[in-house]
Amino acid sequence: MPNATDTLESLREALASFASERDWDQFHNPKNLAMALAGEVGELVEHFQWLTFDEARALPAGTRDEVALEAADVLLYLVRLCDKLGIDLADAARRKLAINAQRYPVDKSQGSAAKYDKLPQR
Amino acid sequence: MPNATDTLESLREALASFASERDWDQFHNPKNLAMALAGEVGELVEHFQWLTFDEARALPAGTRDEVALEAADVLLYLVRLCDKLGIDLADAARRKLAINAQRYPVDKSQGSAAKYDKLPQR
Amino acid sequence: MPNATDTLESLREALASFASERDWDQFHNPKNLAMALAGEVGELVEHFQWLTFDEARALPAGTRDEVALEAADVLLYLVRLCDKLGIDLADAARRKLAINAQRYPVDKSQGSAAKYDKLPQR
Amino acid sequence: MPNATDTLESLREALASFASERDWDQFHNPKNLAMALAGEVGELVEHFQWLTFDEARALPAGTRDEVALEAADVLLYLVRLCDKLGIDLADAARRKLAINAQRYPVDKSQGSAAKYDKLPQR
Repeated sequence: MPNATDTLESLREALASFASERDWDQFHNPKNLAMALAGEVGELVEHFQWLTFDEARALPAGTRDEVALEAADVLLYLVRLCDKLGIDLADAARRKLAINAQRYPVDKSQGSAAKYDKLPQR
Repeated sequence: MPNATDTLESLREALASFASERDWDQFHNPKNLAMALAGEVGELVEHFQWLTFDEARALPAGTRDEVALEAADVLLYLVRLCDKLGIDLADAARRKLAINAQRYPVDKSQGSAAKYDKLPQR
Repeated sequence: MPNATDTLESLREALASFASERDWDQFHNPKNLAMALAGEVGELVEHFQWLTFDEARALPAGTRDEVALEAADVLLYLVRLCDKLGIDLADAARRKLAINAQRYPVDKSQGSAAKYDKLPQR
Repeated sequence: MPNATDTLESLREALASFASERDWDQFHNPKNLAMALAGEVGELVEHFQWLTFDEARALPAGTRDEVALEAADVLLYLVRLCDKLGIDLADAARRKLAINAQRYPVDKSQGSAAKYDKLPQR
């Protein structure tokens, strides 16, 4: 049974209240939010830049927790951006999953990192 | 009432199956996923780079749909990254919201875009 | 008369020595350097995320200096990345300028932010 | 002997003329240019996201040329951004190199990817 607070919709509402209480809607133009998103992803990427694959897979607990909070920042700005644009993020995610299922048929994309437009035609 | 498919947990599961069916776990190292996330955010940002604030607020329907699917890509890679790291993204989001509530008290941060460590001390 | 230390080539050499003296070539794989570049650009973008256009045009001196050093970081990693890939960055820049001159004829792109493949055909 | 066209100053001038001829200064606000920079770095990163370290070191010629032109895009926007901000990029790069030399003494940072504030104190 899904936890109500685990939904994107509940997160969207919490963020809208948070911004409204602080009179932050004036700053939350989609252009600004897209930049904030890019900034947070930059911080997340920095954690991995010098790591080997093995190290990236097995982060020390402290680093993992820092990464978790950076990932949260990315999510919060993403949800907020979509809210300000009137985009239903959960719906978009479902639609994109369906598109990906079409673009990457199981048999053709098996064990391949090729982009869909580079997949072998059969 | 939240839709079960609107939860981050259901998305995590769908993506894990998607990758497993295609034998893609070999590519989904956290380092790679962090890069993929950065790439998708770059694509999202590009949509806004030459826009005024008014234009960013009122995207044409076609652009808005492209942005929705870019936002979905960001979410999908973010969820996948957290899954591979054993991070509970919904929990991290809740924790970060609580941290933000502490860092940005309503009275001190009213109408201010200042970072928490630059807020006026009272 | 150009200053010799103002060239990309002199910068490339300085960075190669810097890394070699510290035994850092082991970390400077192109994949890692591309990530480091993304991280630095994220830091640069953060400076601008909440600013109006007027504010972005007229940064306070302190902020401008911080931005200058972030821009330097971006350049240093970019030059280093190209060096490790055997890419002649100055030559690539000249080639890209020539491509852009072709893609954006002065008369067609006058006062337009449209991407070249969306420019009006005449 | 440095080629005059290899300097950041000559590149700055070429880009200023390019923009002026097309009446593009109206779009080249620092905020917009920072976003364009983020977008281009995203494209560059995408080339490396699924590669192993060995693959990243030995790009096929075609991919390497694509990466070269993406790197050029990053440089062009970076030079343009600095120009619009009145930042001397070559000078900033020299200053940052000097800062890095202080932060990362050869003996302490030998073979270590640790950030300067995590280096062992001796």
